[in-house]
Amino acid sequence: MASSTVDQSQVARNGLREKVLTLNSMNPRVRRVEYAVRGPIVQRALELEQELRQGVKKPFTEVIRANIGDAQAMGQRPITFLRQVLALCVNPDLLNSPNFPDDAKKRAERILQACGGHSLGAYSISSGIQLIREDVAQYIERRDGGIPADPNNVFLSTGASDAIVTVLKLLVAGEGHTRTGVLIPIPQYPLYSATLAELGAVQVDYYLEEERAWALDVAELHRALCQARDHCRPRALCVINPGNPTGQVQTRECIEAVIRFAFQERLFLLADEVYQDNVYAVGSQFHSFKKVLMEMGPPYAVQQELASFHSTSKGYMGECGFRGGYVEVVNMDPAVQQQMLKLMSVRLCPPVPGQALLDLVVSPPAPTDPSYMQFQAELGLAPDMFFCLCLLEETGICVVPGSGFGQREGTYHFRMTILPPLEKLQLLLEKLTRFHAKFTVEYS
Amino acid sequence: MASSTVDQSQVARNGLREKVLTLNSMNPRVRRVEYAVRGPIVQRALELEQELRQGVKKPFTEVIRANIGDAQAMGQRPITFLRQVLALCVNPDLLNSPNFPDDAKKRAERILQACGGHSLGAYSISSGIQLIREDVAQYIERRDGGIPADPNNVFLSTGASDAIVTVLKLLVAGEGHTRTGVLIPIPQYPLYSATLAELGAVQVDYYLEEERAWALDVAELHRALCQARDHCRPRALCVINPGNPTGQVQTRECIEAVIRFAFQERLFLLADEVYQDNVYAVGSQFHSFKKVLMEMGPPYAVQQELASFHSTSKGYMGECGFRGGYVEVVNMDPAVQQQMLKLMSVRLCPPVPGQALLDLVVSPPAPTDPSYMQFQAELGLAPDMFFCLCLLEETGICVVPGSGFGQREGTYHFRMTILPPLEKLQLLLEKLTRFHAKFTVEYS
Repeated sequence: MASSTVDQSQVARNGLREKVLTLNSMNPRVRRVEYAVRGPIVQRALELEQELRQGVKKPFTEVIRANIGDAQAMGQRPITFLRQVLALCVNPDLLNSPNFPDDAKKRAERILQACGGHSLGAYSISSGIQLIREDVAQYIERRDGGIPADPNNVFLSTGASDAIVTVLKLLVAGEGHTRTGVLIPIPQYPLYSATLAELGAVQVDYYLEEERAWALDVAELHRALCQARDHCRPRALCVINPGNPTGQVQTRECIEAVIRFAFQERLFLLADEVYQDNVYAVGSQFHSFKKVLMEMGPPYAVQQELASFHSTSKGYMGECGFRGGYVEVVNMDPAVQQQMLKLMSVRLCPPVPGQALLDLVVSPPAPTDPSYMQFQAELGLAPDMFFCLCLLEETGICVVPGSGFGQREGTYHFRMTILPPLEKLQLLLEKLTRFHAKFTVEYS
Repeated sequence: MASSTVDQSQVARNGLREKVLTLNSMNPRVRRVEYAVRGPIVQRALELEQELRQGVKKPFTEVIRANIGDAQAMGQRPITFLRQVLALCVNPDLLNSPNFPDDAKKRAERILQACGGHSLGAYSISSGIQLIREDVAQYIERRDGGIPADPNNVFLSTGASDAIVTVLKLLVAGEGHTRTGVLIPIPQYPLYSATLAELGAVQVDYYLEEERAWALDVAELHRALCQARDHCRPRALCVINPGNPTGQVQTRECIEAVIRFAFQERLFLLADEVYQDNVYAVGSQFHSFKKVLMEMGPPYAVQQELASFHSTSKGYMGECGFRGGYVEVVNMDPAVQQQMLKLMSVRLCPPVPGQALLDLVVSPPAPTDPSYMQFQAELGLAPDMFFCLCLLEETGICVVPGSGFGQREGTYHFRMTILPPLEKLQLLLEKLTRFHAKFTVEYS
């Protein structure tokens, strides 16, 4: 049945005309989108929760949501410093309050100075507040051991998803056999398959090797690419590192091989690196695609096109609700970069509170800042390590945490020498006693 | 030149291969997007500002940005109540502070209760926090004189733009002569033309009548539709009311005529009503499409498909940076509504601080709340009106502001009668004296 003609039999049946917009007549690309993270299982979980609230008996008493990477929904407390600065930005009257540390106030003032009308309530420029793009560039430089990052290549976004979709949009062209193909890992984070379906691009699957802890094999990239060339024009390669959902952290050698492959095959590289702060396995280390690319030198470093994505939703902060994120582009055609900015400007700007949050994440308190201790402590420092750090900062006394020597679980110690001369030792013990009393009051 | 082959002459010229992603090879739909609000003029304005800072002489000393509806960038101060509640939500430690009014605390606690992990940092469900959707539905009911609104038909979004793009995406289908056509006003807000270009839909222009203060003429809708049917399949009609950029406020008769037209011609209606709180002309009144549609009764009220958009960026609050907004859909096919939710879920959720802000905008302080007076005062109440309101609330004394009678500019009066019996009058004057002293201290 054609979507734009009224089905007279249906009118007769229920007295209503067919809707203008129906499953049959709607955008077929949108209909094909699948998004498992929030699909039917999650819908059912919502229903189950409702049933439990209504007293329905089940073989369990609560639904535990492990479907989405949402630390704070699971009870993780936000980091105090981040929220203090944001509260000051939101309500600058608080800048006069004695209850906020000075560094938090300075940071809030610095961010507000960079906002239109000195308010989070104004739009920012579409690529994000310039000061924050500069801070992000400096963060990338520090992360990559000094390899330069240009703030003009950094674009802030509404979470990383927004930036990923924008870059994919730029890449989609052609029709039929010339349609853009995009290589994505299987398993993948379903944003990729959903966006490719919506854009009508061709999804080209390459399989990660479960037997090798979900490692990426370049031979498999070759296989996928060759097969895809029969029916589309592959133009981009997406890599998720650390892996989502696999958690796999790629070796430096693997990343180099991927870059060589992308260069030889003329593929635009998208590196989804939002889990870069979530590396846990002993011996694993995160290497950014940007760093490896630059260290490979020419022709790779000066020619291979790359977009690298990061987010405020993951890592230690887990601030998903603020929808902060960014993309850094490398070796992108300047004319295309202008087109990207134009596309972003149609949506005006990313949420400004999320931009402010991103600024704090990329430049956390320094060791000399009043908020440093608490900030470090909230990152899950072992209590004895925290005690020793605070002791050193406040009194200048340097002792060593017991965890470095081994201790019964749940107990905490420190190790000190008694080598200083008697009068110094006396002073030390007095200071230590005062500090210990204060510390236990403050943190118990 | 085919985009996937290396241009050897170019390689020879500059030693570099052609980029994978170039103006030639990129998404042609994105290339066609135009967005004047932030286009070349605004780019030039940025440069001019930089030149002025560097001391370059110009026939002006500052750039005044009247290109974008951004009240706070122009110096409008945020409304205290909104920012207080948001600060409490961002940093709940402040709930113990004596410096926040009780109603602000209660509102913050209510919002946090509805958030995952009681934190703005958790994702919400993709359609937005349920409590806030309920509050929005109640707001719509109050606005529309009691016509019911279903929270399940309300979807929160990243500003109104996000929701408009989502609904347009659903509507785009077909190829060549069957491609979806969308009627938009000329002049329009360029989000529409930009989005239609990006989606590859056919933009069908209908012209507003400048001679009649940019009124919408249904005959012109007919003309545009008939011409468009030659080359596409028109399936949707966008109306911006109050007009952007025209400011025109449609009469009720006009809205009825538009609805009848959409119904007869089987067009899905998109009503962009983000400026509904910005109606200034004497005799003008905002009528929502939803209200008029419902009051027209069957068959319109039960069949005409409508999506109505609103935002936290305009109106008295002008909180653009938070990117809050919503769409209410009416008579939408439930299966399509599920598809819309699926599409929204790919982007996870709208920014949660923007959702919280929307909640406050749709349910501002009530007259009995401690924050009410200041909230009203900040909405630009005349000082004498504010004085009289406060006097009434605090003392029960009812007098009338001088502005109702005329007064020299910059002076403020009130009018009171001296009819009460002497002892009552004495009490009244004592109370009034105390109030006046307190008021002038508090607000000077």
